Amino acid sequence: MSTLDPILDLSADVVTLTEQLVNIESVSHHEQEIADAVEAALRPLPHLDVVRRGNTVVARTDLGRAERVVIAGHLDTVPLNDNLPARREGDVLHGLGTCDMKGGDAVMLRLAATLPAPNRDLTFIFYEAEEVDSTYNGLRLLTESDPDLVAADFAILMEPSNAGVEAGCQGTLRAEVRTTGERAHSARSWKGVNAIHGAGEVLDRLRGYQARTPEIDGLTYHEGLNAVGIRGGVAGNVVPDECVVEVNFRFAPDRSCEQAEAFVREFFDGFELTITDLAPGAMPGLHLPAARAFLAAVGGQAAPKFGWTDVAQFSTLGIPAVNYGPGDPMFAHKQDEQVPVADIVRCEQQLRLWLEES
Amino acid sequence: MSTLDPILDLSADVVTLTEQLVNIESVSHHEQEIADAVEAALRPLPHLDVVRRGNTVVARTDLGRAERVVIAGHLDTVPLNDNLPARREGDVLHGLGTCDMKGGDAVMLRLAATLPAPNRDLTFIFYEAEEVDSTYNGLRLLTESDPDLVAADFAILMEPSNAGVEAGCQGTLRAEVRTTGERAHSARSWKGVNAIHGAGEVLDRLRGYQARTPEIDGLTYHEGLNAVGIRGGVAGNVVPDECVVEVNFRFAPDRSCEQAEAFVREFFDGFELTITDLAPGAMPGLHLPAARAFLAAVGGQAAPKFGWTDVAQFSTLGIPAVNYGPGDPMFAHKQDEQVPVADIVRCEQQLRLWLEES
Repeated sequence: MSTLDPILDLSADVVTLTEQLVNIESVSHHEQEIADAVEAALRPLPHLDVVRRGNTVVARTDLGRAERVVIAGHLDTVPLNDNLPARREGDVLHGLGTCDMKGGDAVMLRLAATLPAPNRDLTFIFYEAEEVDSTYNGLRLLTESDPDLVAADFAILMEPSNAGVEAGCQGTLRAEVRTTGERAHSARSWKGVNAIHGAGEVLDRLRGYQARTPEIDGLTYHEGLNAVGIRGGVAGNVVPDECVVEVNFRFAPDRSCEQAEAFVREFFDGFELTITDLAPGAMPGLHLPAARAFLAAVGGQAAPKFGWTDVAQFSTLGIPAVNYGPGDPMFAHKQDEQVPVADIVRCEQQLRLWLEES
Repeated sequence: MSTLDPILDLSADVVTLTEQLVNIESVSHHEQEIADAVEAALRPLPHLDVVRRGNTVVARTDLGRAERVVIAGHLDTVPLNDNLPARREGDVLHGLGTCDMKGGDAVMLRLAATLPAPNRDLTFIFYEAEEVDSTYNGLRLLTESDPDLVAADFAILMEPSNAGVEAGCQGTLRAEVRTTGERAHSARSWKGVNAIHGAGEVLDRLRGYQARTPEIDGLTYHEGLNAVGIRGGVAGNVVPDECVVEVNFRFAPDRSCEQAEAFVREFFDGFELTITDLAPGAMPGLHLPAARAFLAAVGGQAAPKFGWTDVAQFSTLGIPAVNYGPGDPMFAHKQDEQVPVADIVRCEQQLRLWLEES
């Protein structure tokens, strides 16, 4: 890979580096250029072993430390929305990927370049295709192809979390609830059975739903059950014979996938229900020594993570993991995506302190 | 038009003639060939004045009779559904247009050809584009361009009605009922307002709807209010901020359009509602002398017409009108469209008797 131009300057400050990363377009499935740039920047560093799988780049120290920490971030972004190149306005950096999550990637690159002898062995994973179907997820593929490269005692996923620790994540289940009826001409509607009217009971149950808010490791999660789509109708003069309500259940990590499915099936008892998507949550694991040490070092209170993230992948491997990255997740996937400069700087400083302390 | 081949044989029996008409494909907007054939068959008849407007053909006697009757039928069909050519099996003729409504067109052609001196002046209207948006409706266009050609004391529309008299027709109103909310990520759904859940109340009202069944001129109509479509949803992980329920109200002809709209607005009070389509019904008018004479002659009981038909157009012109044609309307627009041979024969016989009686 010696022919690649080193277009990332790892000696620049972390905000400049974030800008450089943002200005390399990397919409999902088009991560080659940014992966090339990351690889070209890291490969010359003598203290790192660099491995590439597809457009996923792994860089590891091998110092024989007692503990190994994975620090991971995805390289891809959602599609362009007229929000490139990066633009800095005062204390805020604007542009696609600034928040989700090239600020985090820049922190990782800075730590990889400038910590030749950290107090824990480090595995940096820059991976592809997080924003699309999990089939393509680079972290998932790496876990399957090279489980040794992912192995660790603790993992930090640099998803935006306002530069604070968000622990665990909720699971997510999607299902289609279907009502059926019998078609008829709408001028003789009493000869049919209206499936859309039948869906009224589905919506009534959703309106009556009471969210559970369990406390786990001192964090209060907040479940949610929502219709995220509804469709039905044959023609403007036909009593429809089918209506489909698509529901999304976000469940606290104290429920397994099986328990989440059982809950939803019971909730919609009497209706035809098809699960279309199901991903487990991740327990916060804040009682585990590695997590407690990290939390103590970055000096913060942990908050619960409501959205699903790849920390669940570490969790299923038995690796305690937290979200910790710059930026407010409310700006992820938005046209006006942005990150406070102070968040990026703070994340780099805190992690550096934790990895240098003796 | 002398170069046209006379491919319709008006001396053939009415069932053979139906077959001939069915085998001339005439999906809406493609009626030129069938209109040419009808015109070519009628123009040589010395007792008829023939006028063509677009693909609508009008043929009139002008005998100075005390009364004039319009007999009308559309020439177009809904799209092909692998149901041509015509196929006769025993006492049933199968194929696209057999029921809706080339059996009726064949009856009209037979009467036009074989009644040179009917007891009432006759205006036969074969018109285009009934099965599509009313903008294109040939009867409507003729009413605008040549109101004199449509003027009459009574009108018979040969829409399928099981060879019995169906009087009046119900009106139809379509509206969109919209609920709004506030988007949020479904992992933090309590920060949003779910518009699909909000539509539950719309469906609850529809489920609680009690149909009115008013009696008019001795006929019992049956109204209906139905959701015929529903749509909502932004993405699988977003609490949706809009849901639209499309409703269709079929109303008895004792309500005006304004009254129908007022009813629907009151019914969905509190929701945003947009009327998208509104067509008046037609009163049965069975108390009018022309209608009573016709009903007495064809020897039947009238039934109410639930579906909307072009009789409403005559009604708005102040012309009493009934539906009277071969075939069961339940087979209209169906893949297995069909008409009983006996219905076609009976309609021709009954009309002939009425128009020949002294």
